[in-house]
Formats: sequence, structure tokens, C-alpha cells
Amino acid sequence: MEELLSELKRIKDKVNTEISRIKNSLVYPKELYEAAFHLLSKGGKRLRPFVLIKSTELFSGDVNLALPVAVSIELLHNFTLIHDDIMDQDEMRRGVKTTHVIWGVPIAMTAGDALFALLFKYLVEELKRKGMEPDKIASITEIIADGAIKVCEGQTMDVLAQDYIKTEDDYFEMVSKKTSTLFRISAMLGGLVAGADEKSQELLSLYGENLGISFQIADDILGLVGDPKITGKPLGSDLREGKRTIIVLHALKSLSKTNKMKIKAVLGNRNVSETQILEVIDILKQAGSIDYAREKARKFAEKAVEYLSNLPDNDHRKYLEMLAKFTYTRQM
Amino acid sequence: MEELLSELKRIKDKVNTEISRIKNSLVYPKELYEAAFHLLSKGGKRLRPFVLIKSTELFSGDVNLALPVAVSIELLHNFTLIHDDIMDQDEMRRGVKTTHVIWGVPIAMTAGDALFALLFKYLVEELKRKGMEPDKIASITEIIADGAIKVCEGQTMDVLAQDYIKTEDDYFEMVSKKTSTLFRISAMLGGLVAGADEKSQELLSLYGENLGISFQIADDILGLVGDPKITGKPLGSDLREGKRTIIVLHALKSLSKTNKMKIKAVLGNRNVSETQILEVIDILKQAGSIDYAREKARKFAEKAVEYLSNLPDNDHRKYLEMLAKFTYTRQM
Repeated sequence: MEELLSELKRIKDKVNTEISRIKNSLVYPKELYEAAFHLLSKGGKRLRPFVLIKSTELFSGDVNLALPVAVSIELLHNFTLIHDDIMDQDEMRRGVKTTHVIWGVPIAMTAGDALFALLFKYLVEELKRKGMEPDKIASITEIIADGAIKVCEGQTMDVLAQDYIKTEDDYFEMVSKKTSTLFRISAMLGGLVAGADEKSQELLSLYGENLGISFQIADDILGLVGDPKITGKPLGSDLREGKRTIIVLHALKSLSKTNKMKIKAVLGNRNVSETQILEVIDILKQAGSIDYAREKARKFAEKAVEYLSNLPDNDHRKYLEMLAKFTYTRQM
Repeated sequence: MEELLSELKRIKDKVNTEISRIKNSLVYPKELYEAAFHLLSKGGKRLRPFVLIKSTELFSGDVNLALPVAVSIELLHNFTLIHDDIMDQDEMRRGVKTTHVIWGVPIAMTAGDALFALLFKYLVEELKRKGMEPDKIASITEIIADGAIKVCEGQTMDVLAQDYIKTEDDYFEMVSKKTSTLFRISAMLGGLVAGADEKSQELLSLYGENLGISFQIADDILGLVGDPKITGKPLGSDLREGKRTIIVLHALKSLSKTNKMKIKAVLGNRNVSETQILEVIDILKQAGSIDYAREKARKFAEKAVEYLSNLPDNDHRKYLEMLAKFTYTRQM
């Protein structure tokens, strides 16, 4: 794991240097760009860029070409965070105040929009400058735009969870769109940049898809039993926001009527007390719902790794394998 | 003018058919796509697509290739409307309830985001399918993405009007970004699609730039003296939202202290009465600020037309000239 963490850091530094370079080229109006880069400058693990760059390296591709694609995905991810925080009325992320809390909703919305526009401009400009063939640039643009649409579809299901997420299958469909999409296209685009064949790109996609689901389940767990000082997010916010996580769905299926009522009283209720949240977390633990989710996260990570087995067996593949384990054992 | 209106309608029908085709291919989750296409299906003059397609025709270009670019700009424009309405807390547009009023802020935000993503996917996909050279597709994508960034910069200046818009020059800078950008790139991209030389593209840009400013000034005027039944927007909402229009800036410069105070009491005050709004509109009329703006709108339209004078002299140019006049004399 030590090895993975140092490689994660190496790639994170590379990505952050590029993000700083982009930020420094944008100055006016200052509030717009400060807001757009606020979360980006306050940490983040850069897991999607890692997956993308490692997938390129797996096929001995050109990291110099993978970098702008990886950075674009990270910009896309952070644009969704800014907008999600507004929709969820989340006030803390990465241990700092969220964008709309600092600059207000209109500037935060616009900052997200600007980041979204910026990533397409930067992507095309950089890849052209670095000499990538124009039809490949067009394909990458199309894949990223399509990915963004899928994320919006998943976000809609999540916002309308009461209507859309009734079963575990609904949950997996939502997560596949909302969270897995960017992992899936990162892995796939890494292969595409390297010129990997279609079959390999498909296997990389499946790796990313399953990694993404494992990642989201781990996120759901951390939201309930993680240390807010480490996760940077308040405990139980998913419950207050009425999110239908795999944990909640499991509990609602198996619990007694009384306990079910207690969960439903908290779900989507923003005025609920800390004590009530802690009581519900305890009920979820007792019901075995958190262990159940943990086991699922492990299984999806295992499945992700299986899809790598027919791809080149080198150090880069090892990192992708280690990442799958890291994803569901992480503390933040 | 009769001639222009019938040509506007012809192109609007073409654009609307294409927009319906896109909408019909998107079904799930239904709330997302209903919200995304709500305003699009409730009218709109399709002026930007008109400018784009006419600019292509001006140089005998292929309308079949111009259409997807024109539709993409219209999708971009409508995405900005959805988000602007949320930021401005506007409840009516085009005579119907705005998107967030019907579906709530989270779905409306996501619908805007989806439209934004969709336009890039559609643009690249369609132009590839129609056989445009990939490097031209990449350039068009870059120009549209850059345009979207400029719109966000203008939007930020507009939201932070108290800090950013103190003089008429500040106003023109904001309008140039927020409103003119899409007219400017529409005209320019029309030329680009047709393969017009750089100098002609530059002249088209300048036409669009000045047309856009004229359009915005006319919009500011209609917001104060237009018929809400025709404009589809409530009277004086710009005042309630604290917008620093050219009209307000002119009045603040020339009025007596008492009248200035009356305007300032209304600016940005959402709880102001209908009577107060009507009184301020009367003050603005008395101060000659509305006539002043009307004269400016006319001048920018004239300037726009001048930039066309060195371009091919054909029927399409006549339509672009007529459009400039229409823009500042329109009732909606």
C-alpha cells in the first residue's frame, strides 16, 4: 500500500501542477476563477486522473498526451462537486466551506459552468498543441461529453431518490451513472490515448465501472462511520439529504417496523438532531447493513481486478489492482 | 420586415425540427429531459441560429453543416437561460413558468448541465456523421467552449454588478461577454463553416458583436416599457434584481439627488411594490434615459450593418441587415 500511496502522490503532483498552470492563466473576474478552483486547490485524491494515466502506461502510451485528458476529467469531476454541493445544501467538503457557502449560489453555479466550459476548451487546445490526430481529439471530446450527460442522469435519479431508487438494482443503476461513469471513461480513455485495441478498452471500462461502484459504496459507508475530521464531511449528511444508499436500502428491507420508522423519520429531514442521527447509525450497524455494504464494496473491487487479468501484466496493472483495494479500505 | 419575419420563421422551423429530433431521442430520467427542453419547446426567436445559418449562406456554404452548429449554439443559449433564471430568481419567461419553478432548483440546475454536455456530444457526433473534417470539428468545439467561458465571465460581472458595473464602459464590457459572445461566434462560425477567409470571419464577428450589444440594450428597454403579455416577462424585474442597465447608469449620472435615491431604493430590492417600480420607470422616462438607450441601440445596429459592407452583396446579407434593424425595434 505504501508503494501505491507514493505513486498516487507522484501523479497527483503532476496533475496539480497542470491545474495550477490553468488557474494562473485565468484572472478576471477574480471571484469567478477563485470560486471555480476553490475545491480543486483544497485537496482531492485525483483518483480518476490516476486511473487514466495508469491505463495509458499499461499500454506503454504517451503520458504527455494522457495528462490533458486526465486533467479534463478532474475538472469535470470538480464541476459536478460544486453543483452537487449547491443541490444538496452541503456546507463542508474536504474540510473546508463549500463554494456556494463562500461566494453565494449564483457565483458558485457560474463557477461550475465555467469549469465545465473550460475543460472542453483546454482539452481540445492542449491535445491540438501536443499534436494528437484531430479525429482522436473529436472522439475524446464526444466520450467526455457523453460521460457528463450520464452523470447528470445519475444525479437526477439521486435527487429524485424517492421515485427512482427503491431496490438495490435501482441503486446500482444510479451509481453506475453518477459515480462509475467518470472512472469508466477514465480507464477507457487511458487505453484509447495509448492506442489499445477495442477489446482492451472494453476491459478497462469494466474495471472502471466496478471500481466506481466499489468507490461509491465505500463513500456511503464513510459518510456514516468515517471520521469527519478525516473525511472532511459531517456525519450522516446522506441521511439528512434523504439519499437512498445501499446501506439504507438493505436496512429498510430487513428491519422491524419500529426501526424502519426511525430511519424514515430521519431520511431527508434536515432538522434532525445529532442524537437521532447517531441512533439511526447504530440501528444500521445492528442490522448488519454496514457490514453488508462493506462486503459488496469488496466484491465489486474484486470484480474490477478480474477484468484486468487479460491485460498486460506489468507494474502499472499492479497499481490499478492495488487501487481497487485502496478504494474500499480507505479512510477518506 | 415582412420578408425578414417569414425567413426567420423558415429557419426557426428547421432548427425546431432538429431540436425535437434530439429531444425525442432522450427519455430517461424523464424529469431531466422534460426540464432541459422546457424553455426550448416554449418558443424563442432562434436569432443566433438565424445569424449563423445566414452567415454560412452569405458565403454559399453548406447549410446542412451549419445546422448542427446553429442548434448547438441554441442549446448553449437555453442552458444559460435555465441557470440565469435560477440565479435571478425569475419566475416567468416566454410567458411560462421557469424551469426551477416547475421542477425545483436541483433538477433545473442538472437540466442546464445536461443541455450543456449534450450540445458538445451532439455537435461532434453530427458533424462527424456529416463528414466535416475532424480538425474543423475540433476548432468549432474550441470556439464554442471559449464562448461559454466568456458568457460565464459576463454573468459574473452581472451578478456582482455593484462592484463591476459602475460606468457605461463597464456595462459594455459585461454585455460584450454575456450577450454579444453568442451572436459574435454565431456569425463567425457561420463564415467558418462556409470556408470564408479570416478577414471575412473577423467582419462577421464584428457584426455579431455590435448586433449583440444592440439586442441587449433593446432587451433592457423592453424590460421597462415592453408589454409583459408580449415579452413574457414581468415589468421591471431588472430593477428588482439590481441589474445595472445602460438606462439605470444614464439616470444615475444625470438625475437629482432625490430621484437618484428613489432609484437606489428600488435597485436590487425584491420586495418593492408595483407602484414604486412604475414610479421609477417614470423617472427614467423623464430623465431621457430610455430615449438615450434607444438611440444607443440604433447606433450599435447601424455599426453592425457597416461591418457587412465589405462582404458579398446578396440576399443573405440583406437579411442580416434587416435583422439588425429588427433587433432594436422588436416588441419581444
